[in-house]
Amino acid sequence: MSDNLIHAYAAMRAGADLEPYQFDAGELKPHQVEVQVEYCGLCHSDVSVINNEWHSSVYPVVAGHEIIGTIRQLGSEAKGLKVGQRVGIGWTAESCQFCDPCVSGQQVLCTGRPTATIVGHAGGFADKVRAGWQWIIPLPEDLDPESAGPLLCGGITVFDPLLKHQIQATHHVGVIGIGGLGHMAIKLLKGWGCEITAFTSNLDKTDELKAMGADHVVNSRDGAALKAQRGKLDLLLSTVNVTLDWPAYLNTLAPNGTMHMLGLVLEPMKISAGTLIGGAKSISGSPTGSPAALRQLLKFAARKNIAPQIELYPMSEVNAALERLHSGQARYRIVLKADF
Amino acid sequence: MSDNLIHAYAAMRAGADLEPYQFDAGELKPHQVEVQVEYCGLCHSDVSVINNEWHSSVYPVVAGHEIIGTIRQLGSEAKGLKVGQRVGIGWTAESCQFCDPCVSGQQVLCTGRPTATIVGHAGGFADKVRAGWQWIIPLPEDLDPESAGPLLCGGITVFDPLLKHQIQATHHVGVIGIGGLGHMAIKLLKGWGCEITAFTSNLDKTDELKAMGADHVVNSRDGAALKAQRGKLDLLLSTVNVTLDWPAYLNTLAPNGTMHMLGLVLEPMKISAGTLIGGAKSISGSPTGSPAALRQLLKFAARKNIAPQIELYPMSEVNAALERLHSGQARYRIVLKADF
Repeated sequence: MSDNLIHAYAAMRAGADLEPYQFDAGELKPHQVEVQVEYCGLCHSDVSVINNEWHSSVYPVVAGHEIIGTIRQLGSEAKGLKVGQRVGIGWTAESCQFCDPCVSGQQVLCTGRPTATIVGHAGGFADKVRAGWQWIIPLPEDLDPESAGPLLCGGITVFDPLLKHQIQATHHVGVIGIGGLGHMAIKLLKGWGCEITAFTSNLDKTDELKAMGADHVVNSRDGAALKAQRGKLDLLLSTVNVTLDWPAYLNTLAPNGTMHMLGLVLEPMKISAGTLIGGAKSISGSPTGSPAALRQLLKFAARKNIAPQIELYPMSEVNAALERLHSGQARYRIVLKADF
Repeated sequence: MSDNLIHAYAAMRAGADLEPYQFDAGELKPHQVEVQVEYCGLCHSDVSVINNEWHSSVYPVVAGHEIIGTIRQLGSEAKGLKVGQRVGIGWTAESCQFCDPCVSGQQVLCTGRPTATIVGHAGGFADKVRAGWQWIIPLPEDLDPESAGPLLCGGITVFDPLLKHQIQATHHVGVIGIGGLGHMAIKLLKGWGCEITAFTSNLDKTDELKAMGADHVVNSRDGAALKAQRGKLDLLLSTVNVTLDWPAYLNTLAPNGTMHMLGLVLEPMKISAGTLIGGAKSISGSPTGSPAALRQLLKFAARKNIAPQIELYPMSEVNAALERLHSGQARYRIVLKADF
């Protein structure tokens, strides 16, 4: 049996249950690193790729891209890492290193055929996973490895816009949708020192969200409640993937405010140019984050003692975990523990 | 006859020809300044207000908000200005001075009932015009007064986004629509040192636009030509007020690029969240600019010898000038010379 044999759980076709799957990954390439998986978060994007919702899946799909583990093998060209070191891997496994975004430290925007960890590449629902050394993020010693995985995708997705928009503690930030991403946004914004308004369709979460750091909790589907927020927010992060009343949300922005899209809403948004012009407002978006931002996030989370709130499942029960995610009951992120 | 009698040209109802109109402006208020009008530019917004297109006009409408003149009277609380000094007045005549945008130098975003120069206030198609002293912008001595008026509205509208988006000489900037605003954008961007792509529906202008500073001229309605611009632009200024193929224009943006709306397109824009997320792109907008930006613009234009290209009409021929504007033949901005 080759040392390069990887044990995984894979979807053999769109929408199928995951099943045990082994494959020979071949020789490790010089720029790659192989990680022994300890934990892997479960993200809605895993479900989208398993089900081929974005029409780009490559089967068998080995999903899982919120990976925590220890370095097992280092390619000869891998820089700055050590065998045995605990690290994380997120949405991206490889980038070209040569395009303008790559050489300017914005590797997440690589225009030279980047590789997503779970598209045409085997992800973290496995005992081992490989990635280019640039995307292997060292874990600070005082960050709990069991709950850290979701920071690598969901966490960086909500953290990167705070860097990009130069958010400061004097700003008032809103978060639409308080699930996996949204609850991490609240915790990070609390550490950031901002005033925080959570928009949720489930007001039963109110006390819990206030305990996480939300100053205000507003019903995301109540027109009158939205109207009362008029002109308040400097930044509004939308983590949902359904169409909401976008004009009403744009009205919650203060002059110069930005609504930042993180959830992949498939239906086009209808936006009035006049609303953007009158208040000097904007609508922006971003995917996950680059290695420099990932390093900053992990250090920030460790220093501020910020951990995603998770439910732990053994990886062998990945199908039950997927069902739990699908039910919408998970509070707030599911993490699988490797038990091969 | 009172010294406060103002001679003007006014529209007495929506869509009417302008006619001579006199009114007593009353005592000058302590914070106000009265300017003897020398020149006044003609902007599409004048037409929109004359015709009540925005449903906010107050008749009689005395339009004109790209005003150059000399100070005739100073209110007792007006700061830093002198009688006889040459100044400019743009879209805004008054702001509250107290709201957060006002006290932070972003008076153009005043949330406390700002006064537009031509809405419920008499503008520059007149021998005299009044405004709050904060909005009276000193003209640098070496700026040609005959052609400077259009800088006060059209010019600042395309200049302010360069400040807001921190544009530098290494950036590649596109301009959609090369009329009054667009041609000033090209001249300002040339002074700024940027690479410039002009998008126009009239390729007959190509040589002229290159002489102004455009590096590339592209047919704004040619899908294949737009496709060839894929991923190139850091900033794209849209000065048109009609619906274009916005997804095609978003594709011309480089990673992290911004499409900035300046023309009041009334039909909602259909925007895909995925496009914003994938390339970390954004869509923003802004109105004109605040006094600090107006001062910077006039100094910049003087230092760089940048002047709008104008056609001069006597103010008594304002109806003929409006007809010329309507014809779409004006190259590129009309200025009226006061001849009362």
